[in-house]
Amino acid sequence: MPAAFADRVIDSIYRFGSPLCVGLDPFAHLIPSALFGDPRSDVSALGRFSEALLTQAAAHTGVVKIQLGLFEPFGPEGVAAAREACRFAQGLGLVTILDAKRGDIGSTAEGYAAAALGPRPGFDADCVTVAPYMGVDSLLPFVEAAETRGKGVAVLVRTSNPGARDLQDLLVDGSPLWTKTAAMIAPLQTRLRAEGEFSSLMVVAGATYPEQARLLRQLLPEALFLVPGYGAQGASAGDAVAGFVPGPKGLVGGVVNASRSVSYPTAAASAATLHDWRSAIDAAMNGAKRDLEAAVSG
Amino acid sequence: MPAAFADRVIDSIYRFGSPLCVGLDPFAHLIPSALFGDPRSDVSALGRFSEALLTQAAAHTGVVKIQLGLFEPFGPEGVAAAREACRFAQGLGLVTILDAKRGDIGSTAEGYAAAALGPRPGFDADCVTVAPYMGVDSLLPFVEAAETRGKGVAVLVRTSNPGARDLQDLLVDGSPLWTKTAAMIAPLQTRLRAEGEFSSLMVVAGATYPEQARLLRQLLPEALFLVPGYGAQGASAGDAVAGFVPGPKGLVGGVVNASRSVSYPTAAASAATLHDWRSAIDAAMNGAKRDLEAAVSG
Repeated sequence: MPAAFADRVIDSIYRFGSPLCVGLDPFAHLIPSALFGDPRSDVSALGRFSEALLTQAAAHTGVVKIQLGLFEPFGPEGVAAAREACRFAQGLGLVTILDAKRGDIGSTAEGYAAAALGPRPGFDADCVTVAPYMGVDSLLPFVEAAETRGKGVAVLVRTSNPGARDLQDLLVDGSPLWTKTAAMIAPLQTRLRAEGEFSSLMVVAGATYPEQARLLRQLLPEALFLVPGYGAQGASAGDAVAGFVPGPKGLVGGVVNASRSVSYPTAAASAATLHDWRSAIDAAMNGAKRDLEAAVSG
Repeated sequence: MPAAFADRVIDSIYRFGSPLCVGLDPFAHLIPSALFGDPRSDVSALGRFSEALLTQAAAHTGVVKIQLGLFEPFGPEGVAAAREACRFAQGLGLVTILDAKRGDIGSTAEGYAAAALGPRPGFDADCVTVAPYMGVDSLLPFVEAAETRGKGVAVLVRTSNPGARDLQDLLVDGSPLWTKTAAMIAPLQTRLRAEGEFSSLMVVAGATYPEQARLLRQLLPEALFLVPGYGAQGASAGDAVAGFVPGPKGLVGGVVNASRSVSYPTAAASAATLHDWRSAIDAAMNGAKRDLEAAVSG
């Protein structure tokens, strides 16, 4: 049995000195078609772009997030490309978070869990994002799959979009609903406790709301944070690590995702050669890594 | 432009005299392998089973629900089988609800919407189920895709599982959270208003909670209900149609899904020939149809 998900994530953070997680978001209109092809006419372009981006990512981080919702519009071939990207990333030693935001009950949830975390024909990803609206029983099949295979589950708690307010911030007994979501999953945090100090239960906590992140840390002291919203969505590195806690080598407690800002920097869009593209991506990833490194080393 | 989703659903209900929706839930261990093959060793068994079940369904209803979460564990080939099943159902004149329970923000939600409701390589399904936790902005890309193509969106409001209580029943200003979800999506009901009396906005309202269904009908008078939990989950036909309203030909207002009870009746499990299997499925579907017919003609 390999090390638990949480331990591998924390190891990556210490190894690279930064909580950067690179997000693989294949936007058809942003992928440089001269270098990789246009996925709208040739799905194999998705694979070429994914492998090139993941290869660059492996120099700057040990954790990547694969955005399944941007592969699915390409049909079953797109899903196959996402699964290949997951395997390719793992071959590079990267820990993979499959961003699928699944959620269902009973045997259907078991199906989604097997698809995301199970061995072939599943993705065999190291972690999957899930939605909490249907309650704890809808999350258990994912937790059970994670438990059996040393993997992780990332639950949406307080998301980074403006509409997060619509339901997540409604007051229940004077506290926002998302704090009830946190309380609901607290037993899962204990259940997915790894060897180190953190649990393989992850919580999605948007970087755009640093105060909520600090409160969420109090509610779930051992959960790993998966922080979206840094970079393209406007949150600073300091905001992004607001829910982290002091550790032996600076602030620790989760990963901060950067997708568009490190995958489609301006210099990459105009790159004439793969070499130029790699240099542009490298500079963008290095910039994000150092920005986050500064934020956690305080 | 074909008729709007809501009008096609209502037309089906009047045509068959029953709100039955047949759910296609391919459970690997329940599909009679002697007749269709075992999908665990041969994914094409999924296609054979799906086509046989849909063909029987078309004699009893005009609406089917395809449970994507039970196709996904078979990998990209499973997703391809689900997409083929969707196309096959439409070829039989069936209205298709893709039960995918997707939910994300911005461009990722657009990706999921294109995958579910868009033309090839998408599923081109007639409706897709979505989760509301991330707020209205996470639902809009689905609504926009539905609006453009005369399709529907089914939002989880009050689900049929025991864990539905964990978040959905929490009190916000004295009312359960799910009523706030209903209020949140009320503008979408208006936006997806079809030609007839119902909107192409569907709401998932579990049959196991008839009182909630009646209250939900007051909150969303024009929404179509998608009612899970009838049959295998234990709710009666009367409970299942609790949120329906009087119409010219009996109670109307949505469809009641039956999956396991009509797909895996005892007599089908022991069928020695396809002919016997068809007879068993036919009897089970007919029974569910008549049970629901009696409930709506009251």
